[in-house]
Formats: sequence, C-alpha cells, structure tokens
Amino acid sequence: MHTAAPVPAAPTGGAEPDWADRTATLLEAVRGRAPLVHCITNTVVQNVTANVLLALGASAAMVDVVTEAGPFARVADALLVNTGTPHAEPRAAAEEAVAAAVDVGTPWVLDPVAVGSLPVRTALARRLLAAGPTVLRGNASEVLAVLGASAGGHGVDSTVGADDARDAAVAAVTAPGGPGRRVAAVAVSGPVDLVVAPGTGTVRVANGTELLTRITGGGCALGAVVAAFTAVSPGDAGAAAVAATAVHTIAAELAARTSGGPGTFQPLFLDRLASLTPEDVVREARITVEPSAVVA
Amino acid sequence: MHTAAPVPAAPTGGAEPDWADRTATLLEAVRGRAPLVHCITNTVVQNVTANVLLALGASAAMVDVVTEAGPFARVADALLVNTGTPHAEPRAAAEEAVAAAVDVGTPWVLDPVAVGSLPVRTALARRLLAAGPTVLRGNASEVLAVLGASAGGHGVDSTVGADDARDAAVAAVTAPGGPGRRVAAVAVSGPVDLVVAPGTGTVRVANGTELLTRITGGGCALGAVVAAFTAVSPGDAGAAAVAATAVHTIAAELAARTSGGPGTFQPLFLDRLASLTPEDVVREARITVEPSAVVA
Amino acid sequence: MHTAAPVPAAPTGGAEPDWADRTATLLEAVRGRAPLVHCITNTVVQNVTANVLLALGASAAMVDVVTEAGPFARVADALLVNTGTPHAEPRAAAEEAVAAAVDVGTPWVLDPVAVGSLPVRTALARRLLAAGPTVLRGNASEVLAVLGASAGGHGVDSTVGADDARDAAVAAVTAPGGPGRRVAAVAVSGPVDLVVAPGTGTVRVANGTELLTRITGGGCALGAVVAAFTAVSPGDAGAAAVAATAVHTIAAELAARTSGGPGTFQPLFLDRLASLTPEDVVREARITVEPSAVVA
Repeated sequence: MHTAAPVPAAPTGGAEPDWADRTATLLEAVRGRAPLVHCITNTVVQNVTANVLLALGASAAMVDVVTEAGPFARVADALLVNTGTPHAEPRAAAEEAVAAAVDVGTPWVLDPVAVGSLPVRTALARRLLAAGPTVLRGNASEVLAVLGASAGGHGVDSTVGADDARDAAVAAVTAPGGPGRRVAAVAVSGPVDLVVAPGTGTVRVANGTELLTRITGGGCALGAVVAAFTAVSPGDAGAAAVAATAVHTIAAELAARTSGGPGTFQPLFLDRLASLTPEDVVREARITVEPSAVVA
Repeated sequence: MHTAAPVPAAPTGGAEPDWADRTATLLEAVRGRAPLVHCITNTVVQNVTANVLLALGASAAMVDVVTEAGPFARVADALLVNTGTPHAEPRAAAEEAVAAAVDVGTPWVLDPVAVGSLPVRTALARRLLAAGPTVLRGNASEVLAVLGASAGGHGVDSTVGADDARDAAVAAVTAPGGPGRRVAAVAVSGPVDLVVAPGTGTVRVANGTELLTRITGGGCALGAVVAAFTAVSPGDAGAAAVAATAVHTIAAELAARTSGGPGTFQPLFLDRLASLTPEDVVREARITVEPSAVVA
Repeated sequence: MHTAAPVPAAPTGGAEPDWADRTATLLEAVRGRAPLVHCITNTVVQNVTANVLLALGASAAMVDVVTEAGPFARVADALLVNTGTPHAEPRAAAEEAVAAAVDVGTPWVLDPVAVGSLPVRTALARRLLAAGPTVLRGNASEVLAVLGASAGGHGVDSTVGADDARDAAVAAVTAPGGPGRRVAAVAVSGPVDLVVAPGTGTVRVANGTELLTRITGGGCALGAVVAAFTAVSPGDAGAAAVAATAVHTIAAELAARTSGGPGTFQPLFLDRLASLTPEDVVREARITVEPSAVVA
C-alpha cells in the first residue's frame, strides 16, 4: 500500500512581485519557443482556442482522430484534452493521446468541461485523470466533480467559487502514488482564480473580467494557455498554471477596459494577448500566495 | 379520425405598441432567469450560437452525444435542434433529446437548416417535426420543405420570401392532433420576418439588416434565441417567437448602423444584444399584426 | 505507358498590370454570380471559412455527411475539400463529393492541411489527389508532402518557403495523364504566394500580411476563396488561383494597416473582403509572372 508522499514545503517568500516576475519571464519563454500545443477540445471552442494560442505566440494543432492523435502527442510540446462535445472518435483519440503523452513525458492538461451529471464525459474525464495530468483545470464544480468530491453542476457554468474546490485540489496534488500518476497542479477558475500545487502552495490570481464568462471559450482557451506554459516550465506545473492564468486574465482585464461588450471584447482580448509586455504583467498582476496551503 | 381543432381567436387589439411592450417584458424575463438552452446545432455555428445566447443573458450548453443529450434535455430550460452538419451521433442525440423534451415538457425549437433536397437532414427534420416542436423556425424554403409543401432550395439561403410560407405555416399550427404533437408556432425569416401561431395571428417583424445574411449563423443563432424566449413564455410559443425575432433583429439593425461591413458587424451585434434596453426595443420595434390570419 | 503531355506555352506578355486587371474582372464575376461553394473542411475553421465566402460575395454550404455530399457536389458551383480534423464520416463524404465533382465537372480544390506525418489525412489527401483536383492549395510543406516530394512538417505551419515547392508543383501540373486526372494548378502559400499552372507559368503574389499566420484559418479560408474563383474561371485554374490569392491577400494587407493585432484583424479583414473594389485590386496588386516556368 502506498502512503502519502511527502509534500515539498511551499516557498515562504513568495510575495506578489516574485510571481509577477516569474509570470513575465515565462511569457517571454513561450514567445521565444512558440510551443506546439496539441489540442483535443470541443467543437464549440476550437476556433477561439487556436486563435488564443496563436495570439499568445504559441502554435496550435487540433489533431483529434484515432491513429493520428497518439503519434502527434509524442512530438507536440504540450497536450490539452477538453471533454466538451465528447463524440466517440475524439474520445478514443483523447485516450490515445494521453497514453502517448504519459509514455514520452509530454506535459498535458485535463479540462473536464461540464463533468458531473453528464455520463459520457464524466467517465472519460475520470479515466484520463487516473493517468495523471500535469495540470487539472476547470471551474470549481467541474474540478470537484472529476475528483469525486461532488456531483457537479448541470451545465458549463460554475455555481461555486474557486476556493470551494481548494481542499479537494490539495488532496489531489498530495494523493498517494508516484508523481507521474497524480495530477501535479490544479487550477480553478472563478472571480479569483486558484492554483494549488506542491511547491507552489495556494496561489490566487485576482485579475480578470466578468466578460470572460460572457463569451464561450473563455475558460476552455485558458486550458490551452496553461498547456503552452507547461511546455516552458518543465517540472513546475504550478508555476505554469499561475503564469498562464495571470497572462490570460490580465490580457482580458486590459481588453475589457476598452471594449463595448462581449462582442468587441473578443478581438480586443486577442490583440492584448499578442501585445502584452512583461511590464504589463508586472504592473497589473494581482497574485497572492498562501505558503502553508499544501500541507496535507 | 381527428377533425381540425378549433383555432383560438387572434387578439384583435394587437397593435404595434403592445407587441413592443411584450417583447421588452420578455427580454427582461430572459435576463432575469438566464435560461439554460440546450443546443444541438451544426458545427459551423456552434460558437456564434453560444456567444449570442451569452450576450443575450441566457446560458448555453452544446450537449450532442448519445446518452447525455436525453438526460440534459430534461433539466434544460429549453432545447434547440438545428439540422445542419447532421452526422450520425448528433442525429441520434437529437432524437434522444427531443423525446426527452416532449416527455417532460421542455420547450423546444426545430431549425431545419437546408432541408429540402438533402436527404439525411430532411428525413431527420420530418421525424422531429412529427414530435411537435414548440416553434419551427427557418427561412421560407426550409419551412416549406419540412412541412412537405415544397422540395426546398439546394442550399442554406432562401430564394423565396417569408410570406411564401405563410399558408403552409397556418396549416401546420392548425393541423389536427393534440397540442403536444403539433407545432405551436412557426417563425419564418426573411427581409420581413413572419410569425404564425394560434392566438397570435400573423405577426410581421420588419426590423433587421441585410448584414445578417452576410454572416454565417445569423439565422441559426436566432433559433437559439427563440428557444431562450420559449423558456420564459410558457404556453405562448407565438409570443416567444415574436419577441425573440424582434430582439435579434433590432440588435442587428442597431449594430449595422455603426459597423463597417460583415466583419465588424458581428462583435457589434453581440455588444448590442448585451446592452439592448427595454426602451431600445419599444423605440425601434416595427411589429405589425394581422389578427385574422390564423383562421384555418 | 503514358508519355509526358505537351505543356502549353505560358503567355509571354503576362506583365503585372494584366494580372491585376484579370483579378479585378474575376472578382466582379464572383460577386455577380455568387457561386455556391460546397465546403468539406475542418471543424476549427468552418465558421471563418463560411464568413470569408459570404464577405467575398459567394455562398457557402458545409455539407459533409455521407449520401448528402455526393448529390450536393453535383449542383454546387465549386467544391473545397480540406483534410483537417478528418473524422470517419467527413472522410467518406469527401470521397463521395470528389467522385461526384469529377463526374459532372464541378471544379474542386484540395487543401491538404497538415499532410505529411499524420497518416489518416495523408492517405486521404493522396487518394483525392489522384482524382485530379482543379487546384491543389497549401503551404509548401503540405504541397511537397501530398505530392510525395517530402515527408512534410509535423504541424500546420510551413517551415519552408513557397518556392521550395515550385519544382514539385511544376511536375504535378505537367504529369502524364489526361487533364481530368491531374491537378490543373498548384497554389502555394508563403510570405510570397506562388501559383503554377500550364498556360499561366509561375506567378508570384507578394501581397499579404504576417497577421494571416497569426489567426487560424487564414490559409484554409483561402482554399475556399480559390474554389469560388474556379467557378467563374472555367478551364483556367491558374487564373482562378492567382485572382483568389491576390484578392485574399490584398484584403488582408489593407485590413492589417488599421488593425491593432490578430483579434481586430479578423473583422477588419472580412470588412475589406466585402468592400474591396476593382480599383483597390489594380492599385495594390503586386503580381509578377515568370513565363517560362512551366517547361517540363
């Protein structure tokens, strides 16, 4: 029987400026490397997901057919699996891709969209979770549902706050089992976003705008952004999740200041993602850390 | 043998101000309730359909896989079934969802996209029509084709005016059979939109812009808007169809005034949907009613 | 055994003004006829592809299910087959549509997205290529891969310049076999776009903007635009490819001048496609021709 793995101590000096600087550094790393992100995601948001990755400076490829997904996950820099519109063929492709990613060490993100009462995606998400995603990302009800801590909501919108999933997230990242088989970090979306990871502690990102919830794909695209950051943050899933969340929500917040509603927000958001500077990140980031959070 | 059911008299005082007021009231009801609209729609317009619903103040969920679609249609506030890109799995999901909606009384909209000469979707649409949608919505050639009154066009664009489908629509809403098994209202798109329903008469909405035909999904998204309005107008499908059509086309008309073409029209349309006030509706609505229309 | 078919001499006087004028004339022909373009394309770009066709003045229909695709290809004015997201049902639909198009002479475009190391789409693209597309369009690595001249890249972005595919393109359009069974023209995207066809020579279009590579579908939508132009340029695939490329990239270049990034670029690009005048084309076109190129 396994016993709980020891949890590395969270950094004690992780004050706001440090995380903002790390985020800015990782953003530049994404742009420098232009990681190729393999996306298996729902048909509703494929377009916006690809555009967000391209605006960020990454590359995107939606390879979701059987016999292509596995080989592609071996050469991609990161993989995103999102459980929306889980038709039979992309479901099989997702399992093939995850097995390949785990085999060769491609970092991968699981986004359990609308998991809870919907049976097909819930079963799929739990099977994939068992393979140990680098980052599990969703809203609180999705994260609770996939972790078995709640039946989840009945739709794609969370009815609980990000912090409601904190205990379950802490339990997930400190669960027994080898590190390759458990989730390395959990990122929870909400008015204040939450990231939990051993070594990172509990990090909260207070940037963002309500407009991200008035467009489809605001959260799903963040899953792809997290994947892009995992490609430049090997071995530190928590940092990838924090930086991705901050970049995504800061760009959104800046776009919201000049948009006239959810329609004009979308192109302005992509423009801001493309033009976001390290200085913007450092100036705008509202990141707080709770060092003792991940003590199981 | 059934005989023709008696047709309720159309309101005789249905002058323009009344319909504008009812539309404004129903718009506020949609925003107050934020109905969850279950959409099974074609992959071309899933994104814009979700964004239109979110901008309107409703919620959207695209649940189009078998074993998820039925249970979801039971808890959703309304259902949209659009027959575009009718692959095998969403076809089966559509039949499952409609059966569930009929079983529990979830209002639902049938949008028979490009029905006519295309065999798969035509057969599907006719089977679904037999289940008695709350609202049948399409352009005139699609409505004529699904009702068996014409072979339909060869594409997605109507070559006839909305009024060309009026007689067939009147026949459909006054057909013999129990009210749960016949279409309760028919909405036909065109330069002037048409709504036919017992109790409503023939209502024409003259708002809109030619730009709605220069983007993909202008009509398909209206199907989802109609579904959202059926959730706040129980038992009065005609009112839901009129109000949805007016809100959709007024927002479009206002957006067209400041857009530079079909590209900038789209974000401005979403902004207008989100910001449309009851006063905008009352001021801009061009709705006329022909009380005697629905005498079979 | 076949021997190499004689290659028609390329026009010797094909100077820049001539191609700009021809492009302007063909643009007006597209708008006058509004060709119905049957698209079987990947789910990531279906929406933007339809919107580009509508903005251009053409019509679009995404008919990608079996038993509908074949009959529809017989009545459509042109067909586009793009190999992205090649699920089983659209794959079969693509083969059915191409067989019908070849049978009745509907012009058709093959866009071999991400062909190379991905096995499903590579096998599909090569089978379709053998049916003799009117135009083969892709980036250089895709064109080289489908023509068997290279293993291709591992993603959707080309790592080679358009001219790297020139020799393979010349060989393809001058290959032995009847004209109905070989590709009539090859269009290769890159910083400078390349078109190769017998009778056209090698034509280079130097318009465009880097922003077309920062959005998803910039190239895929061009495939649809090429298809629209083949409908108004019967028997001259090279002219269709040149004119489509020029219109697409000129509209993009003009949009880029006023956009703030990849987000605002997209709606402005659609606006520019819709408003582009023949005078814009003549003024902006940077088209050069190398008459002797197609000497096998």
